[in-house]
Amino acid sequence: MELPQPYLLFLGDVTEPTYAKTAFGLRDWARERCIGEWSCSVGTVTLGLPRLSPAQARASGARSMVIGVANIGGKIVDSWLPHLLGALEAGLDVVSGMHARLGDTPALKAAADRHRRRLIDVRTPPSNIPIASGRKRIGNRLLTVGTDCALGKKYTALTIARALQARGVDADFRATGQTGIMIAGAGMPMDAVVADFEAGAAEMLSPDAAPDHWDVIEGQGSLSHPSYAAVSLGLLHGSQPDVIVVCHEPGREHLIGHPELPVPSIEHTIELNLALGRRTNAAIRCGGVSLNTSQLSDGEARRLIASESQRLGLPVADPVRGGDEFERLLDNCLRGAVS
Amino acid sequence: MELPQPYLLFLGDVTEPTYAKTAFGLRDWARERCIGEWSCSVGTVTLGLPRLSPAQARASGARSMVIGVANIGGKIVDSWLPHLLGALEAGLDVVSGMHARLGDTPALKAAADRHRRRLIDVRTPPSNIPIASGRKRIGNRLLTVGTDCALGKKYTALTIARALQARGVDADFRATGQTGIMIAGAGMPMDAVVADFEAGAAEMLSPDAAPDHWDVIEGQGSLSHPSYAAVSLGLLHGSQPDVIVVCHEPGREHLIGHPELPVPSIEHTIELNLALGRRTNAAIRCGGVSLNTSQLSDGEARRLIASESQRLGLPVADPVRGGDEFERLLDNCLRGAVS
Repeated sequence: MELPQPYLLFLGDVTEPTYAKTAFGLRDWARERCIGEWSCSVGTVTLGLPRLSPAQARASGARSMVIGVANIGGKIVDSWLPHLLGALEAGLDVVSGMHARLGDTPALKAAADRHRRRLIDVRTPPSNIPIASGRKRIGNRLLTVGTDCALGKKYTALTIARALQARGVDADFRATGQTGIMIAGAGMPMDAVVADFEAGAAEMLSPDAAPDHWDVIEGQGSLSHPSYAAVSLGLLHGSQPDVIVVCHEPGREHLIGHPELPVPSIEHTIELNLALGRRTNAAIRCGGVSLNTSQLSDGEARRLIASESQRLGLPVADPVRGGDEFERLLDNCLRGAVS
Repeated sequence: MELPQPYLLFLGDVTEPTYAKTAFGLRDWARERCIGEWSCSVGTVTLGLPRLSPAQARASGARSMVIGVANIGGKIVDSWLPHLLGALEAGLDVVSGMHARLGDTPALKAAADRHRRRLIDVRTPPSNIPIASGRKRIGNRLLTVGTDCALGKKYTALTIARALQARGVDADFRATGQTGIMIAGAGMPMDAVVADFEAGAAEMLSPDAAPDHWDVIEGQGSLSHPSYAAVSLGLLHGSQPDVIVVCHEPGREHLIGHPELPVPSIEHTIELNLALGRRTNAAIRCGGVSLNTSQLSDGEARRLIASESQRLGLPVADPVRGGDEFERLLDNCLRGAVS
């Protein structure tokens, strides 16, 4: 799947940055391929990129408008439609990672046909996914898992993959969500796979590799999330990780959108993932903890990282901040593997 | 969904009864709607029903041929095709619970169009499934769970639902697999739902009900199965069961098709389901254990049921055998509920 680049990032009318994960991810990890941003109106979320209309973006070289926001349920909102039509009219393809297929909206389908533009759904899984075999594969696998959704599993996997590559380790980032796939240019949209094939899709995503190879796999959801745990468990079983890295956001007390549900502890999340993951890889272990300290000052973050590492007896780091702590986390992940 | 009845049951070319679950289920639970059986050749699995060709079955009043067998991956096998075409030609509709849609096989599609017969896929979920809300619903729910696949979760749920109805309890059997849906005439094909919507599909299957109502929900797969655990966890979270009944087959040492994986213990299966199920229903408890003792003599079964009940400190019964043990299991399931 080759996506037409560079992108114009569309932000819809969302007002909470957490619903614009895709747009922020592309800005942070594929900045050179993002020409600008566009939204239904000013006053919504901004990425700090130049605000360009589809026509302006096209004139500046953009080749597609990427829907960079998500809403609960993954549907296309009516208020977005004029902007998507405007993009097609301006000569841009439209790229989406939502559940609803672009082509299922008749007005979009008609406009794309009329303007001879493409509607590209990143979240359409391949049709040849097998039932998981459970067979242990060659090579090493690291999976990021979380205490909740939307707290850094993708960023952690991307950072670890790049840091391993920088160390000369043969490593690949394996994308499992729409943003990751847009960044990596390939991957498996795990949440769009039929449940019976969920673990099989994870097996397909990280096939047999050289004994010293590392697949760094982007986690999805959380085993403790009442909506998405099925995705997390299929991904865990099929990935057969040798190492998990648990991602957490300090200070988040309740699951996003679920004020009645406390965020589980890091220890509980480690235990639950190891207990369930052991089913397909008896040697699974926790390599460390990734804290999303974006809401903390530098000093607060360093103190928290040190105290959490002490408390848990594990390497703890914020991969975005890096530092010695992050190097120690990497060392611990690689420990004992073929090199 | 109204299925055309009575049925002719098609057994393909399978030689292991475990792959003919659907056919056996229909024979046992909808016997009056099964005219006969048909297969690729004699010497395969038999249900003990009259062997009738599609033409003979049509002449005896059958209105559809039901594919009563499954193969790994849920595809239509080439060797079955002449028989499916024969059924259409003889004037029968074809009903399937497989993953692969009947209409996606061009020869079948063409023959159905030519003979003006219907191809009915029971395993096609509705298109309006929501993301799970996690909101606690009114009424009582019982979910059957298992130490493995194919060991009695559907039969246990069917038997419990009918026994509760016989006691005058307002109870519904909620089907989650193709056979159950064919028996019940409605339900949710849980393994065909996109993973992100898995828990939401389970919420949709057992909506708010009267405070004294019981939904008896057919379990799927096993949390310990490397291929299907995603289905089991989404069903557990979305069902929000008040009571689980753990199903087990004594003497089964390894997961079907996985000689490398031991069947987990009953105690482990109880603990795992309660630990994960607590996330959406803090009051979840185990009502008892259902043993599939079909391979044991009457005396062996009674002794095992007694010793397991003693060992586990829980009611244990084989619902197919019934008896006082089963009544005690029902009593324990209903304990404390509004009546």
